[in-house]
Amino acid sequence: MSARGIDARALCRYLRLRPVALIVQKYGGTSVGTIDRIRNVARRAIATQKAGHDVVVIVSAMSGETNRLLALAHQAAELPDARELDAIAATGEQVSAALTAMAIHQEGGRACSLLGHQVKIHTDDAFTKARIKTIDGTRIVDTVGQGLIAVVAGFQGIDDAGNITTLGRGGSDTTAVAIAAAIGADACEIYTDVDGVYTTDPNVCPSARKIERITYEEMLELASLGAKVLQIRSVEVAMKYQVPVHVRTSFSDAPGTWVVGEEKSLEDVVVTGVAYDKGEAKVQLLAVKDKPGAVATIFGKLAAKNVSVDMIIQNVSTAAGATDVTFTVAKTDLTRVKPLIDEIARDVEATGVRYDEDIVKVSIVGLGMRSHAGIAARMFELLAGEGINILAISTSEIKISCLIASRYTELAVRALHDGFGLDKK
Amino acid sequence: MSARGIDARALCRYLRLRPVALIVQKYGGTSVGTIDRIRNVARRAIATQKAGHDVVVIVSAMSGETNRLLALAHQAAELPDARELDAIAATGEQVSAALTAMAIHQEGGRACSLLGHQVKIHTDDAFTKARIKTIDGTRIVDTVGQGLIAVVAGFQGIDDAGNITTLGRGGSDTTAVAIAAAIGADACEIYTDVDGVYTTDPNVCPSARKIERITYEEMLELASLGAKVLQIRSVEVAMKYQVPVHVRTSFSDAPGTWVVGEEKSLEDVVVTGVAYDKGEAKVQLLAVKDKPGAVATIFGKLAAKNVSVDMIIQNVSTAAGATDVTFTVAKTDLTRVKPLIDEIARDVEATGVRYDEDIVKVSIVGLGMRSHAGIAARMFELLAGEGINILAISTSEIKISCLIASRYTELAVRALHDGFGLDKK
Repeated sequence: MSARGIDARALCRYLRLRPVALIVQKYGGTSVGTIDRIRNVARRAIATQKAGHDVVVIVSAMSGETNRLLALAHQAAELPDARELDAIAATGEQVSAALTAMAIHQEGGRACSLLGHQVKIHTDDAFTKARIKTIDGTRIVDTVGQGLIAVVAGFQGIDDAGNITTLGRGGSDTTAVAIAAAIGADACEIYTDVDGVYTTDPNVCPSARKIERITYEEMLELASLGAKVLQIRSVEVAMKYQVPVHVRTSFSDAPGTWVVGEEKSLEDVVVTGVAYDKGEAKVQLLAVKDKPGAVATIFGKLAAKNVSVDMIIQNVSTAAGATDVTFTVAKTDLTRVKPLIDEIARDVEATGVRYDEDIVKVSIVGLGMRSHAGIAARMFELLAGEGINILAISTSEIKISCLIASRYTELAVRALHDGFGLDKK
Repeated sequence: MSARGIDARALCRYLRLRPVALIVQKYGGTSVGTIDRIRNVARRAIATQKAGHDVVVIVSAMSGETNRLLALAHQAAELPDARELDAIAATGEQVSAALTAMAIHQEGGRACSLLGHQVKIHTDDAFTKARIKTIDGTRIVDTVGQGLIAVVAGFQGIDDAGNITTLGRGGSDTTAVAIAAAIGADACEIYTDVDGVYTTDPNVCPSARKIERITYEEMLELASLGAKVLQIRSVEVAMKYQVPVHVRTSFSDAPGTWVVGEEKSLEDVVVTGVAYDKGEAKVQLLAVKDKPGAVATIFGKLAAKNVSVDMIIQNVSTAAGATDVTFTVAKTDLTRVKPLIDEIARDVEATGVRYDEDIVKVSIVGLGMRSHAGIAARMFELLAGEGINILAISTSEIKISCLIASRYTELAVRALHDGFGLDKK
């Protein structure tokens, strides 16, 4: 019982009822960016606990802090040692976790901060991009069992030798979902600076709407296409362990977007969202000799150098026994890859190579596509209706992507969004 | 063998000789205050290793960093939780240790940073002022055994439950000496912004000289009297485990002051140093009734409230059967203590209380005092020669302290320093 009235959580314990739920809340860098915002996080966590729940809070570093630390590291060494880089970067979350625990005390609650080595979040030893292997939930469960809010530093773990590791950018999402899985949480709330996942980028398409429920599979396709709301690996972990994820904002109480397993009702929606990605460049090998094995040579050599190729188009052979081979690679890989592509062009006797960075990949995503025919044809029609030429196409079970000239990005996104009825509830 | 010539250390290993020495080097906040200075630390550590030694480096937080972190904490909560305060404060040394390891790589060496929980520096759970219980030297010895420089974060440890603890201000000195003891180091070098321990404060007495060798006992008396070069606890640990400590500056190669066990030659010096301490206030209880137990009442009540009393003077009883009782307490305690003293004054029927903060304690310290008579008399003579009135006197085996009016501080220090011949080699 609290002095101000009945504390639902204490009552549940007193009556030996299971608390209403075990909730994991993850707050990103913006949500803990100032002391005032940290106090806000503290009040929200306490309110959730007072509503009768057990609460685990995961925090990122205060916004700007990770960059400040990495800048220091790059002053100390041109190529900082990866192990030491992780030891420095992990302090950002250590500070915000302790500040959050302090703020919870200040606001009248009880809390305890826990670091990667204290929880025991075991990862592999791939410094700066480690993957979680196991999480021991005991310390967290003990902490909330004593009525405290457990505040866990996101983004960090330890390897088998006890070295500090970090999970790479956005890793705190993965920490949150993996902890939720490890302790059997009822929900994992991801607080961010947007209020949910949208049918498309609202900056491009004013009629974009917030999605209420989306499946893991759809979210994965949207995330990899640039929606940037949730870290891809966190969605993979959520899907694997079926953790319900609630993406929402810490600046209001409005519900956001639930990312969940497949539900019957979700299949009625044919297209869930429209995404675009400006991160790829098109490469065209001209008049490749039409010999057996030529294409295998091209993509075998690229794969051997770890170059990811996304879309591939091979034109019909011309009368002269030669064919153009077109594919896309990440723009960030292009400088590194150009010498290799020139070498490949000589091997397959291409008459030349053309590069095009002014392209965009526009995609529609939807679980309903699996059971609805004619979606691709409708997509091509909508683009053609705006006079947009399609340079390449790729499809998966729940996604269709088209490569187009980048100047058509906004036009294409709006045409597809409204053409598939996403502007209407 | 290095490319530039014979590497003495590699040669020792090759010939299965014991390396020349195992050296612990501790660098304070000023010595790692900027990236340039951290590079300087890296070069010094590498040079020591190249000279054939195994090297362990202990670092403090970059100067200003601990204060920045504590300010953040005090914004988050009026009375920050002590456990969380330590979790935040410990990040300062975590960052400087990793930066130092990176800088060593950058300068062509090899290094590995180690935190309190990685070394396993076990402390009690008195957060913000923990005491070291045990140190496991295995990880450090393994690290230097592989040819790496071990860079250990100072000031921090873990308690039995794996919580992060800190040792309080100046704790990195204690970390360094305790590690030197744990791994059986041949020397512990303390790098600071002064180049050694002086016969007295050079700002007060221009003829002050750097002391070449001083005993632990003398250093303890000097440290507690305000010399502030070495943290007192670190000297206690050094004395207990007989670790030779070398106080020196990181800004030059000049030798500093060795703090060592008793040596025959050191006893020839009667007075080693002159110290002064402005941190005490004088309290005078007037005309206390001369009854049995009155003095016991006064100091019993002060002790019960954890008030440390340094000097005590009781004047001869006056004809009226009353006596003045005078003592000193720390100025920082005075506000807290005044109500208690007023209460005590009523209990012992004193006619009044007088406080005097304009006082200073001037002390001479020297191991040789034990075997030389007449030192105290000479001290009083020297002060009287300058017309300085002595308000109180206290002595230990190797120290004599006099309380005087603070306006005489410089005059007294110079008179004692040169009067005992400290201005001459």
